[in-house]
Amino acid sequence: MPFVMPSIADLSRVELAQRLQHLIDHKTKPLGALGMIEPLAVQLGRILGSEQPRLDRPQMIVFAGDHGLAARGVSAYPSDVTWQMVENFLAGGAAVSVLARQHGLSLSVVDAGVAHDFQPRAGLQIRKIAKGTADCTQQPAMTTEQCEQALRHGQDVVRDLPGNAILMGEMGIGNTSSASLILSRLTGEPIGSCTGRGTGLDDSGLLRKVNVLREALARHAHVTQPLAVLAAFGGFEIAMMVGAVLQAAADNRVIVVDGFIASSAVLVAATLDRKVLQRCVFAHQSDEAGHALMLKHLHAKPLLKLNLRLGEGSGGALAWPLLESACRILREMASFESAGVSTSDQDTGQTPGSEA
Amino acid sequence: MPFVMPSIADLSRVELAQRLQHLIDHKTKPLGALGMIEPLAVQLGRILGSEQPRLDRPQMIVFAGDHGLAARGVSAYPSDVTWQMVENFLAGGAAVSVLARQHGLSLSVVDAGVAHDFQPRAGLQIRKIAKGTADCTQQPAMTTEQCEQALRHGQDVVRDLPGNAILMGEMGIGNTSSASLILSRLTGEPIGSCTGRGTGLDDSGLLRKVNVLREALARHAHVTQPLAVLAAFGGFEIAMMVGAVLQAAADNRVIVVDGFIASSAVLVAATLDRKVLQRCVFAHQSDEAGHALMLKHLHAKPLLKLNLRLGEGSGGALAWPLLESACRILREMASFESAGVSTSDQDTGQTPGSEA
Repeated sequence: MPFVMPSIADLSRVELAQRLQHLIDHKTKPLGALGMIEPLAVQLGRILGSEQPRLDRPQMIVFAGDHGLAARGVSAYPSDVTWQMVENFLAGGAAVSVLARQHGLSLSVVDAGVAHDFQPRAGLQIRKIAKGTADCTQQPAMTTEQCEQALRHGQDVVRDLPGNAILMGEMGIGNTSSASLILSRLTGEPIGSCTGRGTGLDDSGLLRKVNVLREALARHAHVTQPLAVLAAFGGFEIAMMVGAVLQAAADNRVIVVDGFIASSAVLVAATLDRKVLQRCVFAHQSDEAGHALMLKHLHAKPLLKLNLRLGEGSGGALAWPLLESACRILREMASFESAGVSTSDQDTGQTPGSEA
Repeated sequence: MPFVMPSIADLSRVELAQRLQHLIDHKTKPLGALGMIEPLAVQLGRILGSEQPRLDRPQMIVFAGDHGLAARGVSAYPSDVTWQMVENFLAGGAAVSVLARQHGLSLSVVDAGVAHDFQPRAGLQIRKIAKGTADCTQQPAMTTEQCEQALRHGQDVVRDLPGNAILMGEMGIGNTSSASLILSRLTGEPIGSCTGRGTGLDDSGLLRKVNVLREALARHAHVTQPLAVLAAFGGFEIAMMVGAVLQAAADNRVIVVDGFIASSAVLVAATLDRKVLQRCVFAHQSDEAGHALMLKHLHAKPLLKLNLRLGEGSGGALAWPLLESACRILREMASFESAGVSTSDQDTGQTPGSEA
């Protein structure tokens, strides 16, 4: 069954955005005084089609997969860590488990292609495409059929979950390599600028990684079409995230984007259909080298910059309360008329605040 | 009754900090991968004296006061906005009211010296020193006795509240002027670098404001002792925050610092006793010109940079969930031993994560 691009509506109609901006400008505060919370509120209102947006049953989905390239020593950790961390997510002991509990996010873990046989259990979706991708310095990380299957699985995961917001996370030893390769090929940026230390390579490890990635790029020198790039460089978890992003965008769900690897999935999806970005809230700028560059290409202004480099969706979870705040500001904050507060003597329709 | 400096313990003993750092380094993530959340967790553990810190009944306290200087046109808003916004805080319609509700923060509003008679009611503490400060271009904003009374009131407010964390906010038309004057005098920075647009002055308004502030500095040219600087430039809400900060530090409470004006109170308190800063978590860097400079002098690394310039404690409230996250990471996250996860092949005691 081939992958069919879902239809994504254009949210750039200005009328609702203007009404939302008017509401925010008349809240009891100086114009613009809530900084980045204000455009975030407008964006959430537009995605959810409401002047009183309400986030409903947010879903944290962590996609996990293994990488053939890991055997080439591109990570400081062995591939076994992928399945071990999946067990940790399910046991509730990982950072994303802790943060999802804190914020009331439902947590689903998806085996997109881990090199391990999991016991089925609640919270785990086994949608394994294969036990890890192929080594992309030798052949495409996945076949076209595997890539399309992963995209469809990603769509199905989102379609089957309730609510109007998804947060995406990932786990996969070797997956900063895939993200760097995707970034370099889709934007033309040199691989050196796209590659970082991942979980903590030292200088010689980083050098080795860049050389392996150059080899991979050379092997697939003529691949430029977004889904072919995705198939060439992997991984299964990234491909499933691309499907999830496309489906969430088609559903008009809010998409909270975590770090470097989740952003690489958004980059592929946005290259297929730019309108995806209307639904994306970029949670943070990671410390992983290459993420700042990727965000620049996505014209993204991330909410947080906390020097995170963990993945798992941890940055998305940390930013989540800011989305809640933005919705509440729209729904609950008084206007200067309703509160009986005087306006600025500059008479610009401004309303007062505290740093006065 | 003169003001007596409370005794503040030195938290710089290294043993607990080392134990906390060890705990964090052995959580299931690469070393340092949670970025700024990690030193935050260590700091909270040190303040609360626990390897399993738990934030208890956090108190948002908003201090309000009026400023004689406001009559000189240093703000875009009339002084009446101070009392009108106090009513808005109490009615639940202000940004800080909305955010405090979201995060379960108890909200207390303190009339430190508003030029208005409030009806007593729940949630409002009337501790008025006077109906606004004097114009500090003509005389000190407050007398020594008024300043000491405000400091004691600030201490009493904190002493009477439960819990182990305070978040401070403020409201007072004209109070960026006081904060700029305090910053300039205590650090020697030129007043031009310390002064911003407050609630939204235009270019000519900003020029006028800087000229008025120069006049105030010249009038009190020889005042340099921290409490004399505070008395000279005001306001009552800032003086009460200084007392609140000193008391909270003596109690070993976590002190969440909001924007430019709250930071000016911390600057005064830290000039009296540097150990105050061991308890301070700087929530954000405000867009108000001068705040970046003030944070530099305080050696502070704020958590958020969202271009806020509202005050009220709104930035502190927005950052609050990050403090909760830091405590939960310490309390709830698995170690690599407990989760049975392999370590890095670089064998540095690192544990694995996702951006691998």
